[in-house]
Amino acid sequence: MFKDATSSEIENLMQQAWTAFHVYRKTSLKQRADFMRTIAVELDSCGDELIQTAMRETNLPEARLRNERGRTIFQLNQYADACESGEWLEARIDTAIPDKNPPKPDIRKMLVPLGPVVVFGSSNFPFAYSTAGGDTACAFAAGCPVIIKAHPAHPQTSQMVADAILKASGKCNMPKGIFAHVHGASFEVGKNLVMHPLTKAVGFTGSFIGGKQLFDWANQRKEPIPVFSEMGSINPVFLLPEKLKSSSADIAKMYAGSITLGVGQFCTNPGLIIGIESNELKSFVHDLGKAIQQISPAPMLHSGIVKAYKEKKGNALLQDEVHLVAESETEVKENEGLPTIATASGQSFIKNRVLHQEVFGPYSLVIRCKDMNEMIEVAKHTEGQLTATLMASENDIKYNDELIEAVKNICGRFILNGVPTGVEVCLSMHHGGPFPATTDSRFTSVGADGIKRFARPLCFQNWPNELLPDELKDENPLRIWRTINNELKKY
Amino acid sequence: MFKDATSSEIENLMQQAWTAFHVYRKTSLKQRADFMRTIAVELDSCGDELIQTAMRETNLPEARLRNERGRTIFQLNQYADACESGEWLEARIDTAIPDKNPPKPDIRKMLVPLGPVVVFGSSNFPFAYSTAGGDTACAFAAGCPVIIKAHPAHPQTSQMVADAILKASGKCNMPKGIFAHVHGASFEVGKNLVMHPLTKAVGFTGSFIGGKQLFDWANQRKEPIPVFSEMGSINPVFLLPEKLKSSSADIAKMYAGSITLGVGQFCTNPGLIIGIESNELKSFVHDLGKAIQQISPAPMLHSGIVKAYKEKKGNALLQDEVHLVAESETEVKENEGLPTIATASGQSFIKNRVLHQEVFGPYSLVIRCKDMNEMIEVAKHTEGQLTATLMASENDIKYNDELIEAVKNICGRFILNGVPTGVEVCLSMHHGGPFPATTDSRFTSVGADGIKRFARPLCFQNWPNELLPDELKDENPLRIWRTINNELKKY
Repeated sequence: MFKDATSSEIENLMQQAWTAFHVYRKTSLKQRADFMRTIAVELDSCGDELIQTAMRETNLPEARLRNERGRTIFQLNQYADACESGEWLEARIDTAIPDKNPPKPDIRKMLVPLGPVVVFGSSNFPFAYSTAGGDTACAFAAGCPVIIKAHPAHPQTSQMVADAILKASGKCNMPKGIFAHVHGASFEVGKNLVMHPLTKAVGFTGSFIGGKQLFDWANQRKEPIPVFSEMGSINPVFLLPEKLKSSSADIAKMYAGSITLGVGQFCTNPGLIIGIESNELKSFVHDLGKAIQQISPAPMLHSGIVKAYKEKKGNALLQDEVHLVAESETEVKENEGLPTIATASGQSFIKNRVLHQEVFGPYSLVIRCKDMNEMIEVAKHTEGQLTATLMASENDIKYNDELIEAVKNICGRFILNGVPTGVEVCLSMHHGGPFPATTDSRFTSVGADGIKRFARPLCFQNWPNELLPDELKDENPLRIWRTINNELKKY
Repeated sequence: MFKDATSSEIENLMQQAWTAFHVYRKTSLKQRADFMRTIAVELDSCGDELIQTAMRETNLPEARLRNERGRTIFQLNQYADACESGEWLEARIDTAIPDKNPPKPDIRKMLVPLGPVVVFGSSNFPFAYSTAGGDTACAFAAGCPVIIKAHPAHPQTSQMVADAILKASGKCNMPKGIFAHVHGASFEVGKNLVMHPLTKAVGFTGSFIGGKQLFDWANQRKEPIPVFSEMGSINPVFLLPEKLKSSSADIAKMYAGSITLGVGQFCTNPGLIIGIESNELKSFVHDLGKAIQQISPAPMLHSGIVKAYKEKKGNALLQDEVHLVAESETEVKENEGLPTIATASGQSFIKNRVLHQEVFGPYSLVIRCKDMNEMIEVAKHTEGQLTATLMASENDIKYNDELIEAVKNICGRFILNGVPTGVEVCLSMHHGGPFPATTDSRFTSVGADGIKRFARPLCFQNWPNELLPDELKDENPLRIWRTINNELKKY
């Protein structure tokens, strides 16, 4: 139905994006914010038709998709506010000291946009991490044109959202080339986009294999560019002894829900739960298994995801040391993901890398450690993660400092007594983490700090006030926060 | 005199650094700042002996070395203040909204250190960009242990500074492993350090070949890590017509000084000056040539640098389109760099990449464009640079927007009517720029914002106040700036 973009089409639209970049980066923060808010309005105006299309293409239920569109609209508006506030610009001014020896010149800096950004739509969030999702909103806020590579699993949904963005772009008199939408089932399209010399950054949410490939291509370019790949994660959950003793049944119930939420198709799905051998752990595993048996399988996003789920889970269960605990008792259909819990010992996790791999779907592996030392070893042998969770009492935390420090090393978000699923869209959120959770642990893909991914500092030395950008003028016409001679000020 | 570190020595000190990391990252901002200030004191206490040693190893004159040590002490103290102020932590708090549906948890984040940082000493700044230089100061401020690879051209100087750091470390009761000093003439030592799994970031100042190699190694690791290589730059200077008309002689004089300052051994040396064919440009080239003839050659850092200068300059002058304008008239000794000016047309610069290469030393190439369009083309064909300079009147700026926008794309610091040499150490400074000036245009290696290179956000969700780090506690015991529910506050 949709044809892959050819090299010459890509060449053409990258040239347009580059031209648009020089116009768009000169727009005011308010103009960018208005553009983003108009996209939010247009996205809302797509109405039921968009939801129906997305339901058909993704198998996601209506309520979830309505929520996700709502979140996407909220994101666009929230990042528009953040864009306009100008705090992300990190404006800094050091005024001249002419009688210093040698004289100190006037020096000012602020973040400026990197250039055209290529964003890869994700399969599991057709709105929030796709065409008008967080990466696109952040790039627009930063002052960058966006080229979307639609996810081939929901091309029609992506096309409708792209049309909404183009409509908003027209209404706001944005330059031609500010936004382009590309279809591509073949990996060549993605490669052409990343390798194009006018591409200046890449945003991606998806598998490790996909995200790492983009990163490698980008680093092989004559001019390497930043790639923000948010990749897989198994989001370990550490059950500490005192807490487990007091609330094993509640934790089992809470986690049965978190593991199977959205058929387990979240990058924050808790795929690894680590406890210490004890009667409480036995009863936790028993309760979790019982709860999982009661949860019905549901359709997954597309046939490729179902296939991968079955294969990866099958492979995990084939490992000598892994034992099935429970599966949903409801009969499973061809296109559905079967909720499943398995278990293995701490030593087998430490020794067998297969158990570290993400099984994308409603699956979790419970690791039974023989003691706290082994739990610490498990933490130390775990790769970088988006999140890690402690289920712990205050005493558990006080007396297990080594564990807690080891867990800090491997995560971007550290949750206490909660579940990792559910990513709040707010400035304090960090949705990122050490490799291989992402390709750059220093940046988030959720929250307005994500804008900074697509910007770099530009420093002006010895420019007269009238020739400086408004953001750096003495009189601060935009009333933004700036650090002036080492002091944060808004006046 | 100094032996290359063996693999097992490196293994041993990386393990120590990793252990130290877990202790050091828990120190307070004040403890880190005090440590940095103590290093500054110890560096000062090295007295004349250090200066004499550096003079012997680098051929740099005494006054310059005293200044550079002064700058290094200033940096350590300035970054210590910045560390203590806590603004670099980007602390953010979003308080819980329990009655939201679903309930919004309490979420807070701040920057935390990456882990052990390997710093490569540079040859041209034995103090300010070497053992106790900017990278080391930033890493200590961020909470990271540092492993220095001494530059083989000044091993004794580096050793003395390392001893000063170790003395400060002892006085401040810092953990063993917080700092290590490694010699290595062979590239294997550098490779072992970058490839070691416990190395979490790399700082480098030097040549493109060296910096790019470190970047490539780091990206080939199982866990890629950030590399901040500040590499070569030719720092283009654009002479605009009206300005040139009014002040050609002054500009020539100013630039003869800048080109030969420190025997041209600065990464901000103006290696490319671009003008438009005219009588004024002719007289500028004439005046610049005359001034250069009067400047005496001086000893360069070491024999490798002299050799490279002769070869690269020789190769540039061999190009068909390049013509020698003038050389110093004083006889040159074996170890000295001969001040030299050459010229070429705009078209030859656009076509011949050899003319884009940095010639590290007192050399500059004047490009004669046939008109403003060709000057714009030259700007568009120039790679990323640390700095770019406009010599321009207000009218020149008003009527040449396309040029100015093109120049913005290629630089980190944009200077108006000045010289690029001289890098002010202040928060507004950006010493960085698009590739190949650096491997990461988003970060600076001068100024306290350089601390952020060695840190990443860590987000705490649902932690009770008493278990949070001080930086994120409700009562703000450290009195640092934080963004609370989207509002910057210090109380």
